[in-house]
Order: sequence, then structure tokens, then C-alpha cells
Amino acid sequence: MTDTRLDVLAIGNAIVDVIAAADEEFIEQEGLAKGSMRLIDADEATRLYERMAQGRETSGGSAANTVAGIAALGGRAGFVGQVADDQLGEVFTHDIRALGVEFDTPPIDRGVPTARCLILVTPDAQRTMNTFLGASQSLPAGALDAKQIESAAILYLEGYLWDPEEPRAAMEQAISIARGAGRKVAFTLSDSFCISRHRDGFLRLIEGGFIDILFSNEEEIKALSGEEDFNAAVSAVAPKVGTLVVTRSEKGAIALQGSERAEVPAEPVAQVVDTTGAGDLFAAGFLAGQAKGRSLEQSLRMGAIAAAEVISHYGARPEADLKALVAERLS
Amino acid sequence: MTDTRLDVLAIGNAIVDVIAAADEEFIEQEGLAKGSMRLIDADEATRLYERMAQGRETSGGSAANTVAGIAALGGRAGFVGQVADDQLGEVFTHDIRALGVEFDTPPIDRGVPTARCLILVTPDAQRTMNTFLGASQSLPAGALDAKQIESAAILYLEGYLWDPEEPRAAMEQAISIARGAGRKVAFTLSDSFCISRHRDGFLRLIEGGFIDILFSNEEEIKALSGEEDFNAAVSAVAPKVGTLVVTRSEKGAIALQGSERAEVPAEPVAQVVDTTGAGDLFAAGFLAGQAKGRSLEQSLRMGAIAAAEVISHYGARPEADLKALVAERLS
Repeated sequence: MTDTRLDVLAIGNAIVDVIAAADEEFIEQEGLAKGSMRLIDADEATRLYERMAQGRETSGGSAANTVAGIAALGGRAGFVGQVADDQLGEVFTHDIRALGVEFDTPPIDRGVPTARCLILVTPDAQRTMNTFLGASQSLPAGALDAKQIESAAILYLEGYLWDPEEPRAAMEQAISIARGAGRKVAFTLSDSFCISRHRDGFLRLIEGGFIDILFSNEEEIKALSGEEDFNAAVSAVAPKVGTLVVTRSEKGAIALQGSERAEVPAEPVAQVVDTTGAGDLFAAGFLAGQAKGRSLEQSLRMGAIAAAEVISHYGARPEADLKALVAERLS
Repeated sequence: MTDTRLDVLAIGNAIVDVIAAADEEFIEQEGLAKGSMRLIDADEATRLYERMAQGRETSGGSAANTVAGIAALGGRAGFVGQVADDQLGEVFTHDIRALGVEFDTPPIDRGVPTARCLILVTPDAQRTMNTFLGASQSLPAGALDAKQIESAAILYLEGYLWDPEEPRAAMEQAISIARGAGRKVAFTLSDSFCISRHRDGFLRLIEGGFIDILFSNEEEIKALSGEEDFNAAVSAVAPKVGTLVVTRSEKGAIALQGSERAEVPAEPVAQVVDTTGAGDLFAAGFLAGQAKGRSLEQSLRMGAIAAAEVISHYGARPEADLKALVAERLS
């Protein structure tokens, strides 16, 4: 196994978030499941946008947020995802590169715009996401660079990417390239509704032994395992993956790696403003910790610190100096 | 004089702000005058954007921010400004309408994109603005609706609009329509560099008696009057306009209206995050107060409350419930 040039290469949806405040009544009127992500088409994106309050646009995308966090923590990160040749595509490209993430997927011009996620943030800081996948769903397997995948210690994939057909095929090909080069594969289950759409596919990956590091939250691990009891769910899944990380919101997080088990509390946050990106940044902190040879517990702490920063403001990308935060809190 | 349908109709640049953090060193390297606004062309916009940190996009534009604030305060407001038929144009249009502002200027499709303002926010919360006027500079006088102008109690104009040729002509035509209908004309000097570009034009308006309400800050009133002493500057300008409002940052604000003079302190702010929009929102509060028949002093207080809200977060549009804030603080 040769040396690595990147710590993490992620493949994910390339999305610009449109974040607006909404009250509980609006979520109810629209019949939305608060805290979850649903896919919408262009017409619904237009209709819902018209009804939303004024917004702020920031780059998003689950795995993209994760590599943004890894780069902010000093890690070497790359991203593969599809934008269109339009203004939102420029915004996405600018932001991820400005963070030092390698991003070379050429934009496409098929008349389909860059993906956007209409995010409604309720006064309880919960986010409800409505994703129009746009160009993101057209990521072709041909956009992959085998050398780049082989050069990364960890290939990181988001469950959301299982929704559109072309990127799913690209992701499966990337897994086989990474494993062929002796690299690790990390995967996030993304969302419990995403699991209900793709449980068989996810289980095939996990039970086939293709996943070295699995990220999940409480709801997701229950949905995946079919176990209602949290501990039973964890016990059912942990033996099938090298490392299992489960985030539990304000209850902290746990990780299991072979016979080792670590647990950390949530980091204190002065005010939770917007929970968008919490899971993404937790994964960033954990992976950056693992890349730097930190212990399982210290990697969890790094995840908790990065997640705490991102929920203290609007938007799913870190704004504070994450490296300094980790240095200060993890001595 | 017939009844009014709108309290304020503003004509201004239709701009989307791209806000990014920057350190003092970056401002210096780029040779920028901190706290000011400069105009840039498409090439410079591309070059500077590439060098900037990750951004967040929110709707902006000086007079547009002001009418957004007036609407948030319960006033009846309209806006006239030029966007292109592109994604940033959609963002601008959505945001201003979502606030309840009447906005009907049709987008144009001439290959020039919607205006953007690259805003660098330094750790001291000062903003340095780099504006690519794009489609905004193509606002034709033909886009004006005389009936709409006649229906508004106050026509509000930004000094920045004096930069591009077509909107300047539109603005002059709008002034004559408004005055012909017996309406008031309000004007903001915008920026001291803007005054150095257009001092003669501004003085022609003011000395010609076309301006009923003039908004200025300390630096601007000095630049306009040519007086280095603040009181001398105020005394020189006040007699030429019906109402003169001068904001003085943390020193509060004053207003002179005929023989009446009012003064208020700055509102307390827990943390000043980004001063973008402070002057715009001050004007919003003052004009909303005047529209509601508030006293000179209470109108200034409303300006100070609205300005304090907008500098407590990133972005130049109000995020908190301004109506509730005013009700709470101005009893």
C-alpha cells in the first residue's frame, strides 16, 4: 500500500442550501416531517420557495460539509460531486475550494440547474430539508478519477447518494477501486427516511463487508437493524463493520471498534441556532481524528466539538477556527 | 393630494451580497479602503471572489435593505430595481417579495448577470464592499410606473444609484413625478467615496430643493459640505433640506427638521457581528416612524433599534421581528 495524498475523498451531492426561518404551523400546513429530508422535483422546489421566508444561501451537501470540516481541521480532503454550469454551481465550487478541498468534477450543462436544498429552520433549531437534486443526480461514473480514489486513505460516501441512479453506480465503482487499493470505506446512513427507501442496498453493502466505518444516529441504527431497542440495534450492526459511530444528539456519541468501546458527552453549546450539518460535522471531526492517529475517544471528542460549532449558527459549514477549538478543548 | 397606497417606494441597486470573513492583512494586501464601497468590473469580481473565503449569500442593495426593513416594521413598501433573468435574480426577487415588499421590475436578459456585492467582514465587524453592478446598472427610465410613484408618500433614493447612467436618469425622472404629485423625496448620501464621485450632482439636488429628507453619516455630511467640523457641516446642510438625519455609529444619531432638533443614543447591542446594512436599517426605522406619525425623536429611536438588530448578525436584512422589538423598547 502506497502513501496517501488525501486523508479523505468524499463522493456526495453537490448542493447549495437555502435556509429560511419557519414556524411550526408552516411545517404542519406543508405536511412535512420535521427534522427529516425529502426529495422534491423542480415544480415543488419552485412552489415551496415561493412560500418560504427570505433566505440565506450557503454551500451544503452532506458529504461536502464533512470534507469542508476535515479541511478546516487541517486534514487533506477531496470531493467529487456534480454541479451545473450556473451561478449556484459557481457558489458551491468557490466555497469548497476556498476551504482547501480538492474539487475537480467538471460542471455539466444539460439544462438542469445545480441542486438546492430548501431548509426550514423552526424556533427549536430543528431543520426540515427539501432537496431538489438537479445536476447532482447526473454524476456519471466517468467523472471518477481512479488515481484520486487510490490516493485517499478513506473513501467517504453519503447514503443520500443512493437516491439518484447515476451517482449510485459511480459510488459502487468507487468502492471497488478503493478496496482494490487497500483503502478504507466510510459510509453515513444519512436519514431514516433514506434508509426506508434503500434499506436492502445499505444492508448489502454492510453485510458484504464493504464498509469499514459506519456513521449513524439513534433513529437510523434502529431503522437499519429493525431493532427498537438502541443497545440491541448497536449490537446487531457493530460486528458487521470495522468501526461503528452512533451520534445521539444531546446525549453525546459512542463508537465501537472491534472489542473497543468509547463514549463521549455532547459538547456544551451556548445557543443551538440551526442543527443543519450536525451529523456531517461530527463525521468530519471523527475522521480527521482517525486520520491524525487519535484514539477512538479523542476522535469522538473532535466530532462532538465540530458538531457543536456548526449548530451554534445558521448554515452547515464551519465558521469558527475548528483547529483552534480542538486545540483549546482537547489538550 | 390623493391618499397613498404605499408609505415608501424606493429605487435602488438590486444586489445579492456575498459575505465572507477576512482578516486585516487581506484588506491591506488587496489595497482596499476598509469600511467603504468601491465599484468593480466583472473581471475583478471573478478575481476577488476566487481569493475570498467561503461565503454566504443574502439579498442586499442599500435602498432594498431599507424597504425590507420598512416592511418588517409593518410599513407599506415598494421597490424598483433591475435584476437579470438568472439564479441570483431569483434570489433577490424571492427575498424582497417574501418580506411583503411590492417588486414588479421585470428581469432583463442581456447577458449581464444580477449585481453582486462582495463583502469582506473583518474581525472588528467592519464591512468593506466591492460591488459589481451587473444588470443593476441597466435600470431604464421606462421601467418606472408613474402611478406607483404617485401612490407613495415618500420616494426614497440611494446615492449609489448615481453611479450608473441609466438609473440616474430614471431617478431624476422619478423625482419629478413624485414632486409633481406632491410627494416627499428622501435621499441617502450612501458613502463618502460616492460623494467624491458625485458631489456636484448631489449638491444640485439638495440646493435645488428637491430633497425633503436627507440621510447621512458623519463622514458623508463633512464630505458633502466641505466642512471639517461636524457641527459646521450640519449647520451648512440642514437649512437646505426639510429634514436632515445624521447617524454617528456608537454615538447615536441626530435629526433636524426646521427649528426642531432631536438626538438619540445608539441602542445597546450584545455583540456587533457585521455592520453591513446599519445605515440602511436606520433609514428604514426612521421612515417607518415618520410614516406612522411618530415624533422626530421616536422616529430616530426606531432607526436606532432597527440598525442595532441588523448589526448583531451577518447580512443586511432584518432577521428578528422588528415590529416586536420596537413595541418592546419604544413604549
